[in-house]
Amino acid sequence: MPSPVGWLNRRLAELLQAALAPAAVRLELWDGSSPPGAPPAPIGTVVVDDARTLRAVLLNPHLQFGECYVRGTLKVRGSLEPVLEAISRTALTPTWRERLSSALARGNSLQRSRRNVHHHYDLGNDFYSWWLDEQLVYTCAYFERPDMSLEEAQMAKMDLVCRKLRLQAGELVVEAGSGWGALALHMAREYGVNVRAFNLSHEQIAYARARAAREGLAGQVEFIEDDYRSVTGACDAFVSVGMLEHVGLRHFPTLAAVMRRVLRRAHGRGLLHFIGRDVPRPLNAWIRRRIFPGGYAPTLAEVAARVLAPAQLSILDVDNLRLHYARTLAHWSRRFAQAADRVRGRYGEPFQRAWELYLTGSEAAFAAGSLQLFQVVFAPVEATPPYWTRAEVYGGAQADEWYAATR
Amino acid sequence: MPSPVGWLNRRLAELLQAALAPAAVRLELWDGSSPPGAPPAPIGTVVVDDARTLRAVLLNPHLQFGECYVRGTLKVRGSLEPVLEAISRTALTPTWRERLSSALARGNSLQRSRRNVHHHYDLGNDFYSWWLDEQLVYTCAYFERPDMSLEEAQMAKMDLVCRKLRLQAGELVVEAGSGWGALALHMAREYGVNVRAFNLSHEQIAYARARAAREGLAGQVEFIEDDYRSVTGACDAFVSVGMLEHVGLRHFPTLAAVMRRVLRRAHGRGLLHFIGRDVPRPLNAWIRRRIFPGGYAPTLAEVAARVLAPAQLSILDVDNLRLHYARTLAHWSRRFAQAADRVRGRYGEPFQRAWELYLTGSEAAFAAGSLQLFQVVFAPVEATPPYWTRAEVYGGAQADEWYAATR
Repeated sequence: MPSPVGWLNRRLAELLQAALAPAAVRLELWDGSSPPGAPPAPIGTVVVDDARTLRAVLLNPHLQFGECYVRGTLKVRGSLEPVLEAISRTALTPTWRERLSSALARGNSLQRSRRNVHHHYDLGNDFYSWWLDEQLVYTCAYFERPDMSLEEAQMAKMDLVCRKLRLQAGELVVEAGSGWGALALHMAREYGVNVRAFNLSHEQIAYARARAAREGLAGQVEFIEDDYRSVTGACDAFVSVGMLEHVGLRHFPTLAAVMRRVLRRAHGRGLLHFIGRDVPRPLNAWIRRRIFPGGYAPTLAEVAARVLAPAQLSILDVDNLRLHYARTLAHWSRRFAQAADRVRGRYGEPFQRAWELYLTGSEAAFAAGSLQLFQVVFAPVEATPPYWTRAEVYGGAQADEWYAATR
Repeated sequence: MPSPVGWLNRRLAELLQAALAPAAVRLELWDGSSPPGAPPAPIGTVVVDDARTLRAVLLNPHLQFGECYVRGTLKVRGSLEPVLEAISRTALTPTWRERLSSALARGNSLQRSRRNVHHHYDLGNDFYSWWLDEQLVYTCAYFERPDMSLEEAQMAKMDLVCRKLRLQAGELVVEAGSGWGALALHMAREYGVNVRAFNLSHEQIAYARARAAREGLAGQVEFIEDDYRSVTGACDAFVSVGMLEHVGLRHFPTLAAVMRRVLRRAHGRGLLHFIGRDVPRPLNAWIRRRIFPGGYAPTLAEVAARVLAPAQLSILDVDNLRLHYARTLAHWSRRFAQAADRVRGRYGEPFQRAWELYLTGSEAAFAAGSLQLFQVVFAPVEATPPYWTRAEVYGGAQADEWYAATR
């Protein structure tokens, strides 16, 4: 028999229900009751199992919603994604707690970066193979056509990056944060470039090297187990897909210095692909604690003013692919749900719930517009931009004509 | 017979020659001599007629190069554009004088804005018709194909803007800063929208109204002689091409408030097209004094953080068209040179020289990368973005398929 709710907890539950009502989400307490103020046609129900959970979520919702969901004392009845998306939509403005947290953010030393990367990316390549596409691309895909599979959309993304950079055979590309190596190998195979790919994850590097050897691309692609701070040499193109989120604002000047040092000035160009924000705001507190320690999704203004401008790089093109990331995450979530038993078997129930919440919550945040996905193309101001019009990137017939006429 | 140069002026001339040498520009003094340090194969020669000019240019080059050029005591031998472009390339970093000037910049009150606009845009529609395209479009064109005429490239630009906004028949568009009305009329004629177009220039408004009446579009397009601050009502799209440069940083919050107020949240979207910078820097001092009082070309970061973020607008797309503006200005310069006698006849020699320098110097600044041209597409974060992929804007075959699949 459930314990009775009591007067104080009823008042607290009313407060929590008032916070959930704009999202049309109903609150249900451990005795099966709902406080007054519940929406008439709720899109889903948040079920709270005890007074401790109620108080924790009310006091620190950004952190405790996740903590209690993982512990199993907070459940969501109805489909999880729409509930999280609706809550995201009602919380698009940073709170005072988030502002404070931004002000107190720690930097990511090399050692801390290694630890952060190990925490997330060294869970075992197996684990990621259960729910990513077959090439293990763990960044936003590009659904060029609506009927594309995840596999096709990841290929389309990699090719889009290459076309935006107008890679030419024989050029040298530096990739900062190379995951399991899919993009580096795609660039080498399809565009004939040489790649130096940097990554801190030991497991990912081992996987990528084996794949390069298997595909006969080991001579063209060098996978280096090291940090972006260690990038040296001179390259024709600098590309980083999904690493900037791990750098942290405080280290943007360091990244700027690296990019300025390595990118050839006369014809160099580069691309940063990263999860961003419309307004400065820390990542969700629970995500930072459990999923991405040290993570920060910057605004375009922060990247423009603190990375690109100090590196004397001109912004040529910015693309916002946030709806593509929502769709990518929906694919991952579906596959992850199919692998739920395997995940629970190897990592336990709380881990499975944590990753379910992380993937679904991320989809919700991109769908609601709380997170953005920016692809930024840039070049040294003295370089000839890689193309005159986007028709050259998006398959317009005049590309070669323009190229001949302007070079 | 020229006056002798003297010891002190020779030393000063050496300093000026040292500043010009990295641009491969030779200095020639009024006695026909050049100081030591002149480049061996100069791309052009700056000829200084007297000691006063030498000293003025040395002390305050950004202002006095223009002042002395207009007065006629500083001449350029060789082609003007390459010389200015080479000088621009050696001066891509703001000087201490520019930083100081930024800190002391005045705001543009409504009264000052009226005066500023009158100064530039009310020179007579005739004057502009001598060297702009036939529709009097006084902003960067878009050379979609390399063989496009200026007329075609201006049409292509207007159409690009409409496609980026995905205008639908019957929608209401607010245009802030409408020039001679070409874009407002294009939107109404080709896309069937209604337009409320705001402009402070009396002469431009009169011209635009007459044209709207002539083309039978007066019922669809309302030209309003007023400031962007006075925009009211609710619109489906907000577009501003070439006005942001006149607003000034200090008034960005006001513009943000206007955009937030008028743009419908559920499906609104907008486009800002403006001359920008890679790093914060005032416009050239001479341009500010003689051509664009109150003008400021902002960085993308300034626009993102001070206009779009406070208005709760998400950046969807940024395009940098700086080489298109260099090409546009080359067209204008060529036509202006053909009209030089007429200009001198009506406005006098110094005016003709000032405008020659302004147009050529602007071409040089865009070619060198000292100025950028940004087109930024944005939407309220809660709105569905106007398109999923750029193929919809650049004529990809899948546009309709996507549209059907995602809405």
